[in-house]
Amino acid sequence: MKHAKPLPGYLVQRYHGWKATAYQENQSWYRRLADEGQRPRAMVISCCDSRVHVTAIFGADQGEFFIHRNIANLVPSYEPDGNQHGTSAAVEYAVTALKVAHIVVLGHSNCGGVQGCLDMCSGHAPELDEKSSFVGRWMDILRPGYEKIKDIPDAQGQLRALEKQAVLTSLDNLMTFPFVSAAVEKGQLSIHGLWNDIGEGGLEQYIPATEKFEAI
Amino acid sequence: MKHAKPLPGYLVQRYHGWKATAYQENQSWYRRLADEGQRPRAMVISCCDSRVHVTAIFGADQGEFFIHRNIANLVPSYEPDGNQHGTSAAVEYAVTALKVAHIVVLGHSNCGGVQGCLDMCSGHAPELDEKSSFVGRWMDILRPGYEKIKDIPDAQGQLRALEKQAVLTSLDNLMTFPFVSAAVEKGQLSIHGLWNDIGEGGLEQYIPATEKFEAI
Amino acid sequence: MKHAKPLPGYLVQRYHGWKATAYQENQSWYRRLADEGQRPRAMVISCCDSRVHVTAIFGADQGEFFIHRNIANLVPSYEPDGNQHGTSAAVEYAVTALKVAHIVVLGHSNCGGVQGCLDMCSGHAPELDEKSSFVGRWMDILRPGYEKIKDIPDAQGQLRALEKQAVLTSLDNLMTFPFVSAAVEKGQLSIHGLWNDIGEGGLEQYIPATEKFEAI
Amino acid sequence: MKHAKPLPGYLVQRYHGWKATAYQENQSWYRRLADEGQRPRAMVISCCDSRVHVTAIFGADQGEFFIHRNIANLVPSYEPDGNQHGTSAAVEYAVTALKVAHIVVLGHSNCGGVQGCLDMCSGHAPELDEKSSFVGRWMDILRPGYEKIKDIPDAQGQLRALEKQAVLTSLDNLMTFPFVSAAVEKGQLSIHGLWNDIGEGGLEQYIPATEKFEAI
Repeated sequence: MKHAKPLPGYLVQRYHGWKATAYQENQSWYRRLADEGQRPRAMVISCCDSRVHVTAIFGADQGEFFIHRNIANLVPSYEPDGNQHGTSAAVEYAVTALKVAHIVVLGHSNCGGVQGCLDMCSGHAPELDEKSSFVGRWMDILRPGYEKIKDIPDAQGQLRALEKQAVLTSLDNLMTFPFVSAAVEKGQLSIHGLWNDIGEGGLEQYIPATEKFEAI
Repeated sequence: MKHAKPLPGYLVQRYHGWKATAYQENQSWYRRLADEGQRPRAMVISCCDSRVHVTAIFGADQGEFFIHRNIANLVPSYEPDGNQHGTSAAVEYAVTALKVAHIVVLGHSNCGGVQGCLDMCSGHAPELDEKSSFVGRWMDILRPGYEKIKDIPDAQGQLRALEKQAVLTSLDNLMTFPFVSAAVEKGQLSIHGLWNDIGEGGLEQYIPATEKFEAI
Repeated sequence: MKHAKPLPGYLVQRYHGWKATAYQENQSWYRRLADEGQRPRAMVISCCDSRVHVTAIFGADQGEFFIHRNIANLVPSYEPDGNQHGTSAAVEYAVTALKVAHIVVLGHSNCGGVQGCLDMCSGHAPELDEKSSFVGRWMDILRPGYEKIKDIPDAQGQLRALEKQAVLTSLDNLMTFPFVSAAVEKGQLSIHGLWNDIGEGGLEQYIPATEKFEAI
Repeated sequence: MKHAKPLPGYLVQRYHGWKATAYQENQSWYRRLADEGQRPRAMVISCCDSRVHVTAIFGADQGEFFIHRNIANLVPSYEPDGNQHGTSAAVEYAVTALKVAHIVVLGHSNCGGVQGCLDMCSGHAPELDEKSSFVGRWMDILRPGYEKIKDIPDAQGQLRALEKQAVLTSLDNLMTFPFVSAAVEKGQLSIHGLWNDIGEGGLEQYIPATEKFEAI
């Protein structure tokens, strides 16, 4: 690996600042976490989007959440075909090794990945339809969701509805994993669907009784 | 989706606390991020581990880092085979759509995924060798790294060395993506390899000249 | 005191969140509580265990319960010997100064302190028998209870039985305080024995007529 | 134990409400806590006062804090004399068995126990000076603190100053426990002193550099 470059100086400075303050104040906790291992209460599956900070929203510190982040917070369905499934590996580790009590799928507004899915499915992004498009193939997971929202008249409404379909698709797919559904049925694991409005700081959760996302 | 449960009350309370403080103080920024879209300077690829908080270490706020987190911060090699590759999709989106200036791969100490790889490759975890093990198949990405460290005599030394091989493997694999190597060669993108010592708060970066990870 | 450190940042943030929400919504009540003093209806004696939240179980808010928490929710017998008795001081203050109407002793499942007593009394924890063991000496209060349950054949059954003996021992010892028995006899104070099953969310209370703990 | 009475109906009703809602929503977490045991990050030592709710202020849920509550949040000094020391037992269990990373001593305004100490030390409460007064003997722990604040001219100022002395006295006494001071010196434990203004919802922490309590 000859291409690696030194870290930009502003990040080096910030790191030294953190080391001298937050690390110093919490070193007893960091050492205990290192010695005894992590024991997070929940797994969070959220988007890579730089505007989504689940730890900030929930006041969570080191050790609380096991966090997987991918494009559009998607979970594929259970496919034990021997291929590399990074998301499935994360779910498997969280449920079988860490035995988390909750899995929270956190979607959000203005999601670029979901917008790409909308463009692709409505025929406006042929480049995403190509076999070589990793984003396109990844967003294929959400294609069934598109069918449910394509008749919404306005573009903004379609996007929000599809962002919420991404959360529901992931929750549905989570239940196709035998170790997830078994843990849910035994009362050892509960699953939760959230959607965050970035601009307004809003948070909605899916309520099965009404089949809607409702403000928390 | 009939299995979703309401969010635990303590998280609801903490969210309302965040909304009334951090959100209120920053709403102009959140609204601008929502209206204009994200424009992160860097992509960070780190582990799902609950003990690794890249935003804390680098004092980063909403909008700065596009963050992908998976087991053991691994990037597979470029394989445009039409299958679902979540990590490759995240890298593609960061480089081609967001045009980030940096990709930082952040490894860490006490990594459960890397430990699993070590156990599997040394014959001590046959269950990870099975086709149906998502964690095992995912950690296959790191098998070539195991060959380079297997002669280290002590277990702790092997683990640390393999954690760093995970970073280097990811950097090497990143360069197999045509859009990554092209951007690196044009000076539009730089890549960085880091390793975080959780208990001691340490941070090391890979220096090509010495072929070593050195303290920052 | 030169060793005190600043509070970890995540707790500072959560506090500011509470101040901006729950405090704002209830400040008239908090101010009245500050001006007029507390007037709790009940004293609760429960364990320090982080899994036992009496305020959650009973939906109690600021001002309702005067709460003493110690290892294994134990009350020693009345010994006015001039030494420092923290639990006795709490009981005295609750009954003579605050004139609470109830004292609730709340035991619980999986109690580490009671397990320690079991180990000590059965000869499996010699370190707890030493004079210098504060936990051991504290658990001596429960030694008479051990005699009553030692013939139960299974370990789990012994533990549960001894956890309930801890509640009964505390109730018995409470009645050795002259100001407690006097208030009980005058009908000014009633005492209650509860046992909480943490995993199942169960709650049992002691019924003198059957001499058993029965589900509420 | 023939004196125990059934729990008042309003508490029975609230319990059933909690069981049907919060318990149902979190049963996976409660079961995990029951199966695997607690692993709290911090011990909190606070007052029995019904107006002090540390879990509310810090948005903490089951499993986070190991909480000891006594009159005036006092810790006596280390005395391994074989007598029953409930507070010392709680500290010993937290540090040596649970290996908590933080001990937080939380004092508060309008503290009845501290007011009693002030009255006793200034000669206005002879009944507290009696050998048989548990509250008086317990508050003896704070007598050295009285000497430092007795020259403050106003009663309100004396009370607040003595409430803060109670926090500092406890921090000082904590350091007399060999297992506490050893853990602090090894960077495995940090100690924190807080004071809560009940009416105003304020929170101050002791800062060694200025030797003052400062608003958080």
